Amino acid sequence: MTQHTPLKKAPSRHGNDRLMKLQHFLKQDNLQGFLVPKGDEHHGEYIAPYAERLAWLTEFTGSAGLSIVLESQAVLFTDGRYTLQAAKQIDPQSFDNENLKGEKSVIAWLLDNADSGCKIGFDPWLHTEQAIKKLETACAAKKIEFVPRSPNPIDEIWTDQPAHPTAEIEIHDVAFAGYSAQDKLADIINTLHDKQAQACVLTLTPSIAWLLNIRSTNSGYLPAPLAFAIVKHDRTVELFLQSTNIAKEVIAHLGERVVLFSKARFAERLSSLAQDHKQILVDGKSCPFLVTHLLTTEGVKIIRGEDPCTLPKACKNSIEVQGARQAHIKDSAALVSFLAWLQQKVEHEKISEIEAQEKLLEFRQQQEHFVQPSFPTISSAGPNGAIIHYSATPETNRVIDKEDLYLVDSGGQYLDGTTDVTRVVTFAPPSSEQKDRFTRVLKGHIAIAQAKFPEGTTGQQLDILARYWLWQDGLDYEHGTGHGVGSYLGVHEGPQNIGKFVNGSTPAPLKPGMLLSNEPGYYQAGAYGIRIESIVVVTETEITGSSMLGFETLTLVPICLDLIEVNLLDQHEKEWLNDYHTQVREALLPLVDGPTQEWVKRETRAVL
Amino acid sequence: MTQHTPLKKAPSRHGNDRLMKLQHFLKQDNLQGFLVPKGDEHHGEYIAPYAERLAWLTEFTGSAGLSIVLESQAVLFTDGRYTLQAAKQIDPQSFDNENLKGEKSVIAWLLDNADSGCKIGFDPWLHTEQAIKKLETACAAKKIEFVPRSPNPIDEIWTDQPAHPTAEIEIHDVAFAGYSAQDKLADIINTLHDKQAQACVLTLTPSIAWLLNIRSTNSGYLPAPLAFAIVKHDRTVELFLQSTNIAKEVIAHLGERVVLFSKARFAERLSSLAQDHKQILVDGKSCPFLVTHLLTTEGVKIIRGEDPCTLPKACKNSIEVQGARQAHIKDSAALVSFLAWLQQKVEHEKISEIEAQEKLLEFRQQQEHFVQPSFPTISSAGPNGAIIHYSATPETNRVIDKEDLYLVDSGGQYLDGTTDVTRVVTFAPPSSEQKDRFTRVLKGHIAIAQAKFPEGTTGQQLDILARYWLWQDGLDYEHGTGHGVGSYLGVHEGPQNIGKFVNGSTPAPLKPGMLLSNEPGYYQAGAYGIRIESIVVVTETEITGSSMLGFETLTLVPICLDLIEVNLLDQHEKEWLNDYHTQVREALLPLVDGPTQEWVKRETRAVL
Repeated sequence: MTQHTPLKKAPSRHGNDRLMKLQHFLKQDNLQGFLVPKGDEHHGEYIAPYAERLAWLTEFTGSAGLSIVLESQAVLFTDGRYTLQAAKQIDPQSFDNENLKGEKSVIAWLLDNADSGCKIGFDPWLHTEQAIKKLETACAAKKIEFVPRSPNPIDEIWTDQPAHPTAEIEIHDVAFAGYSAQDKLADIINTLHDKQAQACVLTLTPSIAWLLNIRSTNSGYLPAPLAFAIVKHDRTVELFLQSTNIAKEVIAHLGERVVLFSKARFAERLSSLAQDHKQILVDGKSCPFLVTHLLTTEGVKIIRGEDPCTLPKACKNSIEVQGARQAHIKDSAALVSFLAWLQQKVEHEKISEIEAQEKLLEFRQQQEHFVQPSFPTISSAGPNGAIIHYSATPETNRVIDKEDLYLVDSGGQYLDGTTDVTRVVTFAPPSSEQKDRFTRVLKGHIAIAQAKFPEGTTGQQLDILARYWLWQDGLDYEHGTGHGVGSYLGVHEGPQNIGKFVNGSTPAPLKPGMLLSNEPGYYQAGAYGIRIESIVVVTETEITGSSMLGFETLTLVPICLDLIEVNLLDQHEKEWLNDYHTQVREALLPLVDGPTQEWVKRETRAVL
Repeated sequence: MTQHTPLKKAPSRHGNDRLMKLQHFLKQDNLQGFLVPKGDEHHGEYIAPYAERLAWLTEFTGSAGLSIVLESQAVLFTDGRYTLQAAKQIDPQSFDNENLKGEKSVIAWLLDNADSGCKIGFDPWLHTEQAIKKLETACAAKKIEFVPRSPNPIDEIWTDQPAHPTAEIEIHDVAFAGYSAQDKLADIINTLHDKQAQACVLTLTPSIAWLLNIRSTNSGYLPAPLAFAIVKHDRTVELFLQSTNIAKEVIAHLGERVVLFSKARFAERLSSLAQDHKQILVDGKSCPFLVTHLLTTEGVKIIRGEDPCTLPKACKNSIEVQGARQAHIKDSAALVSFLAWLQQKVEHEKISEIEAQEKLLEFRQQQEHFVQPSFPTISSAGPNGAIIHYSATPETNRVIDKEDLYLVDSGGQYLDGTTDVTRVVTFAPPSSEQKDRFTRVLKGHIAIAQAKFPEGTTGQQLDILARYWLWQDGLDYEHGTGHGVGSYLGVHEGPQNIGKFVNGSTPAPLKPGMLLSNEPGYYQAGAYGIRIESIVVVTETEITGSSMLGFETLTLVPICLDLIEVNLLDQHEKEWLNDYHTQVREALLPLVDGPTQEWVKRETRAVL
């Protein structure tokens, strides 16, 4: 699954009011402009309500965007996915809507619209130093100055801004995590030594959750507390939380080496850190401007590198892999129970997309260790399936027609693992075009699933395997083939992925224990969507005396046989499909009720 | 085919004499060391005898290497391919032999062995500024200074150094080139404008040959004159040749805007250029240190970019593509005539690898517009086929046994195109392992040949298609899948290629008209080699309403059916093979003699 944003109903058109308040505030503050990005100080995927400053200002609720407010005008930049949504949501008299094609479009707009020598404010928590430097360099000719402003002016005028969440901190048991926080910390300290750093600053919440074996479930789909951390080479950790009022058991779990502070004291502690730690590692891609700027001012030599938790977090240990297997079996049992129920219901009743997804959640909630969904469910019938980031709302909610292809992309957070699965089913004979497209997507899915590759291979090299049979017919899909998946953490995580190479990026070699989605698709706008998504784990295997890597598919849900044009499959593909369906039967039949067993048996019959 | 170097017979051990002379010369010149790389001032693939300074000094004749000579010691760096060859060729009492693993090994050796504050000379024609800067930076701590020395000290002491070749310049007729030099020049001037350059310096010989529609056949396998050129925004060109004594027709062809100079005057003309051209484009990867250093000293702003001829040269126009089709048909006719002859002969006579390759050349020489081989032929039987850069010598020459797999990799320079083809044939029933390996290589070859892909796709994305079925069985090949090919120019050219992504490189999107080899392989050391190589051209095609790119295979030589395990091919692959063999029959039967016709018919029978 990819990122999701619910479409707001109808703009209430108070954008103009808020915009004028902000402009008035800026004037008093001697600023001629201000940057309002989508995002919070952790630069993660989901943000809490208090950080929805862009939505508050513009009414635009998409998952990515940037507003620039000047003295007498304002603009909202959104990418191609959100052009239509933004047009519906924003007040066109207050905001121009521009297409965000990287930094270039922002810079061009600033050079065209901002006055020479003007001062533009930004919240130093919400931008990286690199991003601000690029703006400064590009706008130097016009002498435009970028000025950090904290607290954020919007926080000063947003009277009913929600409070920062003070989520409860939970211990992530070592029975699920595999390694203790002490062991992980020792590893990270080694990385610091290797990089000649005396400390590192962690601002990515999944890294902190992983390192300290803690979780928090009140902050949306990602069960990580909104924390900062400083890790020092003497093996002590400073942990910054919204509230330090946490359970005794958690304090005991964290141990003496972890010192708790309120988030409000983070900047002060960074200054203190800088007194006797002169070489500090930060993640250049996500570390807030404020942090790097403060450390530099204190004479620290910043070592820019990847967050040191990112790679070990991505390479799941054997306990985590075993947990992922279990979580996926349970999750698959819930999904097949739902699909069996749905087929029965669609025959006789009018079931809507929203009713369907509510029922699916019920099935998941019956599974052991289930905590919450891992992302907003995409329950989409017919043409809604062609909207890649669809989420059913009362306005779009469609009754699932027997003639519709039904696409459901959903996942769960379980204590033992994070799941994400997409299947498409049909309740009536599909068109030959639909079967052709589905089978091409399946051929790509199988080519990835059974690929073997040497160490050092990246997901960029594998990507074409998923697209080959679509490309052969002039077709493609406009999203990646696979994203990394966490272990009771983010359903999207790096560095691993499977996708087209993006110039300037550093592809990450796939390593044993990494979890990835395998999700090629095809979308026929206005008609139907197809996506076959399972989670795979990278495994090591020896073939003909060579050590090779490969994938084990963890998701065990039937792939709709009625949608397959069997003549398009070769012998290897048929064998893969039959083997897969045999695994599905063996894993799920003991776990589901009678009618679901019948459904599973029918849906996993051998293909000849 | 890949690069080749003949193995010299036995070292004559005069290395020590020459080394001492060089060390004596350096001492008088107040230098404590000198760098001797393999290469000439054009940084191309083949070098003329006068530039074989490394071989003269060390007796090592491999295609890549670097010697560093200090006051009382010397080292030869060679890469993994040449470890054994270097050990046989060099005098171990004079030269240590080190493994060249990028710049790091050279730097480490210098830091270990060179004295602090010493001066090390280098020939400023034979290194790029980037390479020297990296050495300077890395050795700064030891205050090692790198000092340009021109003329090269070796040229001063090498008494019987061969003269620079004064190859005859020939006109490359527009009937083959497709566009006039004037048209090409206009394009390059546009590129200069785009890059805000007032001139560019060309030092890559294929670029100059392409731009001016000239060729020269006395300088080895690459029919380009050893020239430099300066292209100015006023559409004039200064062309630098070893001898300006060229035919009147060529002078007329070049026209008034091309002014001829002796190569000896190149540096002087660069200084002159710098007087009124302050922004000059050079190719940072290949431009000699002398050029960039001289221009910088004269106050020029150097614009580093790809040689502006590289991309338009790579994208063949329709005349060149048509020429390539013709050249490949003729070349294929020569190869099948040879293979039919060989099969006949091997049955009854002892034919050696060298006899075979001489006969193959005879068949090529009978073809219209044939000029010369495009690289040294690899005629290899049995275990010799497993040596990727093999070239038969009297010492290695093997009689082609009926039980051997015979691998022949060869190509021709024709006025209408450059060819390069590899086929493997068998004269007796092969082993099941050989059939399995050959068929996996073939499946990769077919996957590339029939791939369709959107604009923007690079050869790095396609590479895995060629390796997939080998990887599935733990196998691989240690070379690229495809290299660019010129039009009556270099058999290796950039920027296009098909291969694994190398970090730091900029992959080049494939574009219509680019020629590439498609040459997966498999090598069983000590036993046999397999490679199936055809040349393909990138074509545009419309499928299901989408514009896609794909390949047309130009080489038309049967793929040995006796080596195929038909059960491993799927229906698509069988169809491709049968279609291909139908094309081979249709193109070649009218061109070859009776016995060859029979051979072609047999070798292209349908596979069911």
